[in-house]
Parts: sequence; C-alpha cells; structure tokens
Amino acid sequence: MNDPLHVFFHPRGVAVLGASANPTKLSYGVIHNLVTHGYLGPIYPVNPKGGEILGLKVYPSLTDVPDPVDLAVIVLPAGQVAAALEECGRRGIRHAVLIASGFGELGAEGKEHEEQLRQIARQYGIRFIGPNCVGVLDTYTPIDTTFSRTMPGQGPIGLVSHSGAVCGGTMDWANVVGVGFSRIVSLGNQADIDMADALDSLSADPHTRVVAAYIEGLPDGRRFVEAARRLTARKPLVVLKAGRTPSGTRAVASHTGALAGADQAFLAACRRAGAIPVDSLEELVDAAIALAYRRPPAGPRMVILTNAGGPAAVGADHLDRHGLRLADLSPQTQARLREVCPPGTMTGNPVDMLGGPQADHYTAALRVLLDAPEVDGVLALFVPQAITPVYDVAVAVGRATETSEKPVVCCISGGGGIRAAARALHAHSVPHYLTPERAAFGLGALWKYARIRERPVPDPEPVEGMDRGRIAALLEGKSGVLSPQEGAEIAAACGLTVPPSGVAVSADEAAALAEGMGYPVVLKRVAPGLTHKSDAGGVVVGLKSADAVREAFARMVRAEERALVQKMAPAGVEVVVGAYRDPQFGPLVMFGLGGVYVEVLRDVAFRMAPLPRAEAREMIAETAAGRLLAGVRGQAARDIEAVVDALCRVGWLMEEFPQISEIDLNPLIVGERGAWAVDVRVVIR
Amino acid sequence: MNDPLHVFFHPRGVAVLGASANPTKLSYGVIHNLVTHGYLGPIYPVNPKGGEILGLKVYPSLTDVPDPVDLAVIVLPAGQVAAALEECGRRGIRHAVLIASGFGELGAEGKEHEEQLRQIARQYGIRFIGPNCVGVLDTYTPIDTTFSRTMPGQGPIGLVSHSGAVCGGTMDWANVVGVGFSRIVSLGNQADIDMADALDSLSADPHTRVVAAYIEGLPDGRRFVEAARRLTARKPLVVLKAGRTPSGTRAVASHTGALAGADQAFLAACRRAGAIPVDSLEELVDAAIALAYRRPPAGPRMVILTNAGGPAAVGADHLDRHGLRLADLSPQTQARLREVCPPGTMTGNPVDMLGGPQADHYTAALRVLLDAPEVDGVLALFVPQAITPVYDVAVAVGRATETSEKPVVCCISGGGGIRAAARALHAHSVPHYLTPERAAFGLGALWKYARIRERPVPDPEPVEGMDRGRIAALLEGKSGVLSPQEGAEIAAACGLTVPPSGVAVSADEAAALAEGMGYPVVLKRVAPGLTHKSDAGGVVVGLKSADAVREAFARMVRAEERALVQKMAPAGVEVVVGAYRDPQFGPLVMFGLGGVYVEVLRDVAFRMAPLPRAEAREMIAETAAGRLLAGVRGQAARDIEAVVDALCRVGWLMEEFPQISEIDLNPLIVGERGAWAVDVRVVIR
Repeated sequence: MNDPLHVFFHPRGVAVLGASANPTKLSYGVIHNLVTHGYLGPIYPVNPKGGEILGLKVYPSLTDVPDPVDLAVIVLPAGQVAAALEECGRRGIRHAVLIASGFGELGAEGKEHEEQLRQIARQYGIRFIGPNCVGVLDTYTPIDTTFSRTMPGQGPIGLVSHSGAVCGGTMDWANVVGVGFSRIVSLGNQADIDMADALDSLSADPHTRVVAAYIEGLPDGRRFVEAARRLTARKPLVVLKAGRTPSGTRAVASHTGALAGADQAFLAACRRAGAIPVDSLEELVDAAIALAYRRPPAGPRMVILTNAGGPAAVGADHLDRHGLRLADLSPQTQARLREVCPPGTMTGNPVDMLGGPQADHYTAALRVLLDAPEVDGVLALFVPQAITPVYDVAVAVGRATETSEKPVVCCISGGGGIRAAARALHAHSVPHYLTPERAAFGLGALWKYARIRERPVPDPEPVEGMDRGRIAALLEGKSGVLSPQEGAEIAAACGLTVPPSGVAVSADEAAALAEGMGYPVVLKRVAPGLTHKSDAGGVVVGLKSADAVREAFARMVRAEERALVQKMAPAGVEVVVGAYRDPQFGPLVMFGLGGVYVEVLRDVAFRMAPLPRAEAREMIAETAAGRLLAGVRGQAARDIEAVVDALCRVGWLMEEFPQISEIDLNPLIVGERGAWAVDVRVVIR
Repeated sequence: MNDPLHVFFHPRGVAVLGASANPTKLSYGVIHNLVTHGYLGPIYPVNPKGGEILGLKVYPSLTDVPDPVDLAVIVLPAGQVAAALEECGRRGIRHAVLIASGFGELGAEGKEHEEQLRQIARQYGIRFIGPNCVGVLDTYTPIDTTFSRTMPGQGPIGLVSHSGAVCGGTMDWANVVGVGFSRIVSLGNQADIDMADALDSLSADPHTRVVAAYIEGLPDGRRFVEAARRLTARKPLVVLKAGRTPSGTRAVASHTGALAGADQAFLAACRRAGAIPVDSLEELVDAAIALAYRRPPAGPRMVILTNAGGPAAVGADHLDRHGLRLADLSPQTQARLREVCPPGTMTGNPVDMLGGPQADHYTAALRVLLDAPEVDGVLALFVPQAITPVYDVAVAVGRATETSEKPVVCCISGGGGIRAAARALHAHSVPHYLTPERAAFGLGALWKYARIRERPVPDPEPVEGMDRGRIAALLEGKSGVLSPQEGAEIAAACGLTVPPSGVAVSADEAAALAEGMGYPVVLKRVAPGLTHKSDAGGVVVGLKSADAVREAFARMVRAEERALVQKMAPAGVEVVVGAYRDPQFGPLVMFGLGGVYVEVLRDVAFRMAPLPRAEAREMIAETAAGRLLAGVRGQAARDIEAVVDALCRVGWLMEEFPQISEIDLNPLIVGERGAWAVDVRVVIR
C-alpha cells in the first residue's frame, strides 16, 4: 500500500520558514524539536534577518537553501502564508506543514484564504498539512516538526487529530505513563491533506498497530469511510468525533468551521468502516492502549484476578456492559489456583486473593488462568496495600503475560508509585488503567475488535430487477413531494412489491378501478399537504364492493380532489423502510416499526446506503420491529428476507438517483411470504 | 436529627483489642492512626502480653482498662471476635468496630458466626460496625480507627462503603489531589450497623455536605430508601451499586454474600430516595467533588471557557448528554469579553481564547461570565501550553469564583504540575477534572441535584374506594395463578374499572350472560396454563349477538373447559400496568405498551410501590406508551389520569396484600375518558 504522506515522514531536508532564535516562539520550538528529537537530514532555518539558531545557519531566503529539501514547515503569521507557499512552489518544494491559525476557523473570509492556498498548491503540485495545526512526527524515522514540549517514545499507536490540543494532551499523558506512538498527525483545518489521507498513511506504516482518530468535521464522509475500510482490513481504528450533539455541533462550528454530521450518520459510517466509535478522550486512549498492546480475545469469557472484592464487583458489572462475562472456572483450574494462591483465596470468579497476596502470587495465578482453556482473557486488579509494592505487582503481571496471546489488562489504582507501575506494565505490553471500569472498557474494546475482525462488512451486492430507465423517466422533471401514485410507480420500477393501484377523479372511476383489481381495496384521498393521511380521515380500508367504493369516495373526497384506489395488501406486520441524504455521509437507510409507532418509539436503525444484505439483516435484528417480525407469542415469523430486499433496493435507489432526497415506505406490510409497499413517499430536491 | 453513630465518632476512650507492637500488623496501624491522627481521648491497647506500644501502656485485659472507655476496636482473628465482643459487653463497652474478615463473606457457616455476634450484641446492648471492615474516621473530631496508611484532610465529603478497598483507593486519590473528607465509614458485612444507620449519621453530621455511598448489598432495601430520603432532604447523595449485571451480581455474591438487587429495582429506589446513581468509581468521585464544592445551577445554560477548541467540543457534547446546553451569550457579555480577553478570542460559546491566554485572562473572563445573567454555570478548560504555568491558571480560576454562587468546574489536562493545580483548585472550592467529559459530568451531577431539590418525591397519597375487606375475602385460601374471573373481581374491589364479565360452562350460559351485559362481548377460553390467551386462538372479540356467542363457544371451548364472557371495552390504547415483588426493595410497579409490544419493545418504566401520583405521571411520560397516550398525529389524548389512578391502586394493593407476588393488567385499555382492565392476572405466593 502506498503512503500518501511518505515524504512528510521521510524528507531529505527540511526548511523552517519564519525561523526565530527567540525560545518563546513556536518556530524556535519546531527547530529545537527537529534538532533534538533525532532528525538526521539537513535542517534549514529561513529568516530574512539571517544569523544562527541552535548552531544552524539561518538562510535569508528559501532560494538560498541548498538541495536536498523536500519539506517546508511554515511558521509565519496567516497573512504571510500564501506568499511563503508560493515561494516553496517556485523553489521546488512539494510538501509543506502550515502551522498558523487564522483561516477557515474564523469564517467565510478565512475559508477564501484557504481556497487561495489550495490554488497555489494545485499550481505547483504541493501537498500541505494544515493550516492551524501543530505539525507531524514519526518516532521511528525519527522526525518531529511540531513545537510540542515533549517527544513521545516509540510505540504502536498512530494518532491523527483535527485538534492540536488533543495531540498535545495525549502526548503529555503518554509520556507520564510510558505509552509510545509511531506517528502523530495534527491535521488542523485539513485544507488539503485530510483525514482519509492520514488514515491511508497510517495504514501503510508498519510501526502503527492501532490508529486513534479525533475527528471534528468530515466534509467528505464517504472518502473517510473508504479509507477507514482499507485501514480496518489491516489494523484496528478507534474514533472520537466531537459535534455529535446540538451543543457539540455548535462548539465544533465555532472552532474549525467544519460541518458536523448527525450522530446516527456517524455511527452508521463507523459500522460500515469497521471502526470502533468512542464517546470521550478517556475512552479514546483507553481503547487505543488495549488494542495496541494485546490481541483480541477468542471469546467473551473473562476472569478477574484481584486482592479486593469491591473494585472487582465494579469491574464485573462493566465487563457485562461490554458484552463480556465471567468465565466459569473448571474444578481443575480452581485446584491449580489453590496450589499457588495465598490461603483463603476464593477461587471462583472473581479470583479474590483477599488482603495479602505478594507479587509472586499474581505471576503464578495469572499463569494458571492464561493456561486454562475456559478463559479468554484476564483483568488483573490490585489495590495498593502496605505490604506489597505496586511496582513489583506490575512487573509480576507483565512477566506472567509474556508468553500468552490472550488479552490481559491491569488495574492498579490510587496512591503513590502508580506512574512507575504503569510504565512497567506498558513496557511489558500490558495496558494499565486507574479504575476497574476503565480496565473493563479496554477488554470491551478488544472484544469489539474481535467481532469486527470476524465479520467484516462486505461490499453491497447488486440487486436485480431494478428498471433504471423507467425510474429515470418517472423522475424526469419532477420536484418536491411526489404523489402516492408516482411514489408507487417508482417503488414498482425499483423491484418492490406494490399492490395494484390507480387514481380516480370520480366515484364511478374509483369503482371501475376497484372492479379491475379485485376486492378488498383501500381508498386514499389525494390532496397536497396531506403527509399523514390517517390524520385527517383520508383513508378507508377494507372496501369490498363497487358500491362501498362509490359511497366512500362520495363521503371523503371533495370536489377537485382525487383518490387513490389500491388493492389491499394481506395482513402483516407494519414496518417502515426509509432513506435520507446526510450532508456528510450521503444516503442512509432507516428501518423501524411502521405507522404511528415510528414516532413514539424512536426505535429505528440506520445504515449507509447502498448496503450489503448482512448489514440489512443486522439493522433489522437490532430493532423492536425485528423482534416482532421474528415472531412473538407463537406467531409465525414474517418474511424478513423480503425486508432485507426492500432495504437493499431503497439503498441502491438512493445511490443511483441523487435527485431523490428522501423516500419512505410507511408502512411496508410484511407477511409470512412477501412484503407490500402500500404507501410510498418520495421527495425530489 | 439524632446521629446513631455519635459515640463511634466521639468516644471518651478507645480500647484496641489484639494490640501488637509489630509495625506490619493491622492492630499496630490502628493504634498508630489513633495516636498520630489527632484523637485526644485516652487510647488503651489490650494484649495479654502487656508491654508498651508507641509510648502507650498495654493492658493485659479489658477489665484492667480504666474508665472512661466507650469504643473497642477489635483487631483479633475471626475465631476470637465473639469472645472479645462478650468481654466488651461485660466491661460495659457499648460500641465496637470489628476488623477481621472470615465471616458471612465465606458462606453459610460464616453467616452463623455473624448471627452469634448479633446475639451477643443484643444481650449487652452493643452496636458494632463490621466485621470485615477497615474502621471509621472523622477528620473534625478528629478520630481515625482505621489502619490505612494515610489520613485524609478535612473536607465536605462523607464516604460510606461496603468495600474497604474502595475506601482506601478513594483516600489515596483524595490525598493526591487535595480533596478532604468529613467522615469515612467502612461497613464491611454490616452484620449490625448498616447502610441506613450510616446515612442517618452522615445526615446529622454538620461537616458533611455531600455523601458518597458504595453499595454491594442491601438486605432491607426499604430501610435504605427511608434513610436516603431523610438524608436527601438535607444534602445530596451519590450512590454506586455493584452487582447490577449478571456478572456483577456474581462478583458481589462471592465477595460479601450480599444479595444484589435487580438494576431496575435499584434505579427505582434511587428515584424515590432522591439519590443520584452513578455507574463507576470514577463517576462516584467526579459527582461527589462537584456536589461538595459547588451549589447546583439555577438553570441548564452553561459556558465553556477554553484555550483549545477540540477539548471544548468534546465537553460541549457531554454537557448535552447530561441535559445541559451552551448558553447564548448576549452582545453585552461578548463585548465585555472582548475587552478582557486576548485579541482574536472567539466570544461565542465556547469562549475560545485560542493559544495564548495568561492566567489573568481566565480571572477576567470568568468574572464577566459569572456576572452574566444568561449564564448558569461555567466549565473552565485549560490545555497546558509552554507560556502559561498550569498552577497560575488554577489559582486564577479559583480566585475568580470566590464571590460567585454559580457552579464552576475546571478541566486542566495532561502533563506536569497537574497535582499542584488540582490542589489549588480544590483549596478554592473548584472541582478539578482531568478531561472535559468528566468536568461536564460534574456539572451534570449538579444539574441532576438541582432538579431533585426542586421536585422532591412526595409520600404516596392514599387512594379511595379500595374495598380491603372484599380483597382479603377474595384472596382467602388462594394460591398460584388466579383465574381471569378472580383477577377481575380483585381489580374491581381495588377500584379499577373492569368490564362486566362472567364465567359460562355452556354455549347457552355464555349467550345468557352476554344478553345480560349487552353487546359487543368478548369470549375468552379459560384453561389452566394459558398465560397468553392470544397465542392459542383462545380469544374472540366483537361478538354482537347471542348466536355469535354460542357459535364461538362451540368452536373454541372444549368439553370440561369454561369460557369468560366479558363486555367489550371501548376502543383505546392498550397499555400494561404490572407489579412484582423485588427481594430487596419490595413491591415495584411497571408501566409500558400493552399486548405483544411489552415483550418486543422492552420499553417499560418501574417505580417503588406504593407510589405518589407524581411518580406515576413521571413513569408514564418516560415511555413510548406515554407518548402514544398523549396523542400523536392529531389523535385525541387518552385519559392519562386514569392510568395514574390504576398505577397507584395497584401499588397500594401490593403494599397492603403481601401475599400477592405479581399482578398484571395487560392490556389496560385507555380511552379518552377512563381505562378498562380487561385482562387481570394475579399470582399468589
């Protein structure tokens, strides 16, 4: 796989524009980090004043800088960046990092300014990172173009972030607890290089074993999903997206001006991408260290090894919340535990060694548990006590896990010596957590990844019997909300089962239509602005004769109005299949209980469209409507595959006809064999 | 209010039984803490060997100890505790702390052992804490009977815990970040003094401003709720309960042998008690420090003041999740901010001072925001940067809030100097958090408490028209599942509206009953083991004539079987009203959508029974069924007060007739006026 950011991490020479000898300036920090964090290529500070910085000659202009130079770090005020970028282009530098803020995050004017940068870049074939970023680093090259005070150690985590502060905060924490990074990419406003480029780069990087991404905006959500899919085919991806609630959206908008996607669309994108979404900065690092240091478990059966019952009980509750459970330890395993644990140890699960275990007891007990075939993973928990040093326990836990591929996470809480213990654990590839609930979250992330790896989401299968020509003809010249009859025709052309129907302008015409299709029929009043026909007494069902049809028409339909006559579908479960277009992630399909229930229950599932049948089945299974379709109280199961088919067809319809902004089959009546779209609402933009 | 633990915190003298001069022994730790943590009364180590410990004379036996001595701390092995307690009784000591483990947590034998302790205590009028605990402390007396390595500073938090490790871990953390405690009570197995006693004690203690409780088991959940209600009338209560999931329950059972309540029952108990339930140890302390240091906000309008956009966006998302939102800052406020903030500051909300604020900017901006009438609280967020020391920012935030009663929480993340910053913030009564999401959680806890204070749950009102004598007569001698007819009679006696019904053994009898009550009627087959009658074709609705009733009887009801004839209720929304008995919290009522939906939707609400009408309204409002009753798509609202009435009646029925183990009105058909219990299932134990 090609690394689109290869040169950023392996330049043959770096120029720093706006170089300053003043140690309080960012540009000094950049030069300082390039020099002291191990970059072996030539470094060229550039400043018209000339002079010397950290022993390096300062070049008065970029034209004076000798070859080779592949990368420019531009640390100039916003107003000077465009000219500097142009200078890079003229000098033949094709890669740049733009540190300055004061662009798109300020509003329309700033966005124009960014567009100017993009034009210059296009003209000279430049790729650039930023503006409004803190730079990039690779601990293995090594190269550090940031002005951060600290350089993280080498390690398995690749971090990409729209926020520089999130990079800085994460590096600070990582240094304290001895967690290392492979690469850090601060994207800033991503005016050129974006999240998808960064994911492709980290996917290609052999030192990156897990990717943690902090996301604010994704102008092209589909591009992100495609890159994430490529990445998750090789390694795990954890994503935190800010702006998923009304307040968060507002915070993001004022920050980087990025458009924040609806929460449902983002979660659907994560499912398709095989990414693990998290809700907080703490969860981002908690999941990342678990996935960086341990392999996913083969199953959900966990053991808690502890010296304290209370925290173990909290940990057990949280294992359960993440779909894991306490393993049933065999009599053999329990006997072996009794041999190696302190007297009085409770060998059930949690394995509670009570108040007095030594570090050796942790090693011995862990070895027994990791050998046990009924155990898929271990949460080792130690509450500091006077007689056993926490550092010794950390080393003991680390050593015991060296030869096992099963996941082990360790919670050592409170008090002094925790930092040293955390560093020792991470040095042994055991993730450390301060509380049992966070340790359980780490195991939960591994379990999520295990299931993602087992069942990657396939590409959407094509559907047969979609009459694209007829759909295009039906949509031709239309706009706004289509009539029910038009909606029904589009659904039929899409390959959905639609009861025969026709539009009548008189009672006699309605009766004639009914005679032609056979009874019973439904009569629906057609009038502009009637979205929910049942609101206004606009539907009569179960009409069984021509007279009944005439009578209903006369009673319900006013002069100048018309009526839809539709053959009644067989009885069945009423569900809704819908789709809309998210501004970032494109078309999404929706499924839930039909009729009024969709509003009161809010129990609906979303997926990106088009979708593979596997995702359609999954979204049905996770709703109440799905449980109803599966058959309750001895009722026969309904035709779930017919719903799967409807979801897939609607998904392709949205994909292939971008002029459709919304479609709703509500209800889709699902029988024991087949499903009937009896009311189709289509909106054209 | 009386403090049931007064003497434990104010003894006129303390004896330590099992005193040892060996510094690795727990008893040495107890004496050490009594001596060095400031207890001013006499301390009497007791050990048959005599000698001296830490300069104190060791008494060979308790009889030698001089007066006054009110409290004994027994640090002897489990096997010697009973004899020692008896010795205390004979010596006239009426209060004891039992440290030893090896009792009820080990199983049946240990439980008998605890019962023996209770008998001795009853005989001598002794109250004791433990066994299997780490003791109690009060930082204001001061007295510390624990063997913990550290003594927390004075502060507003009272902590009570079934787990000694949770006490220890919390004290360790609190010492590091400078958070103080008023009292800590480690309850252990609570064989005598229990959670309710501890809550009453902390309620009475003037130094305790918030109570944090870690709970494993509550043998008498109602007692807990009553004590918690007394406490929350005065101060906030945060509770973490372990054992709320299958795995957690197992962990608790193996730990203290306590019976863990179902999650629903626990949450219903918290609502009644006005307590704030949390899910993790981290949330327990995060909520406790917010409630300890700040007053609840007057409204949900929050401001985020920050030097970094990314973490602010994450914080904004989490504010939203806790029911808070970003305040709209007035033009005046924004103008004042522009005067005092660094150039370029974004004065919307979040207020983003970008990369360069000094500590003074935080003080000035906070003062503006705390003065603004449109602001109910502030999340101050600072990501460490090279030029501004974190300690200065902490002091600046602390000082700015000194004169304001609005809540302010502070997130300073990552890097060095955090401990000093946290201590400075706590010294100024500003809670410190490491991440924006946890700071938002702190504000969320304050907002929860604001709403609890505004609307305390009243006592359940009595209901009229319950014929208790008739109910008792109907229940007399019954057991198991009652017949639908018996169920209907109990419901009617309870004051619920039940359609007329009767049981028929023949088609003619059924027809005669139907003629008497008027049409339409429903015919329901009555046969043992038919729980869901609709499963087996056992119900025919809408019979409109005697012939139709005869025909349906003949077709459906087999020889030797009977049928219930019931007048059909008017059309309406079908809901379920049910109740069951939780082993810890007693009767609970349930509400949700009726019929098959209760199973597929799992959208039900629970409350403790009997319940006040306010809680009944609240539980209806939080379900999909409630939204349906309120009227959707222009449908008329249904009679919600009739459902409220049914919930209250069923609640009182459960309370007053403990022989009823379960009752279900499914469905209760709710019309525009009135609600009909058409199918009543009652189970007698």
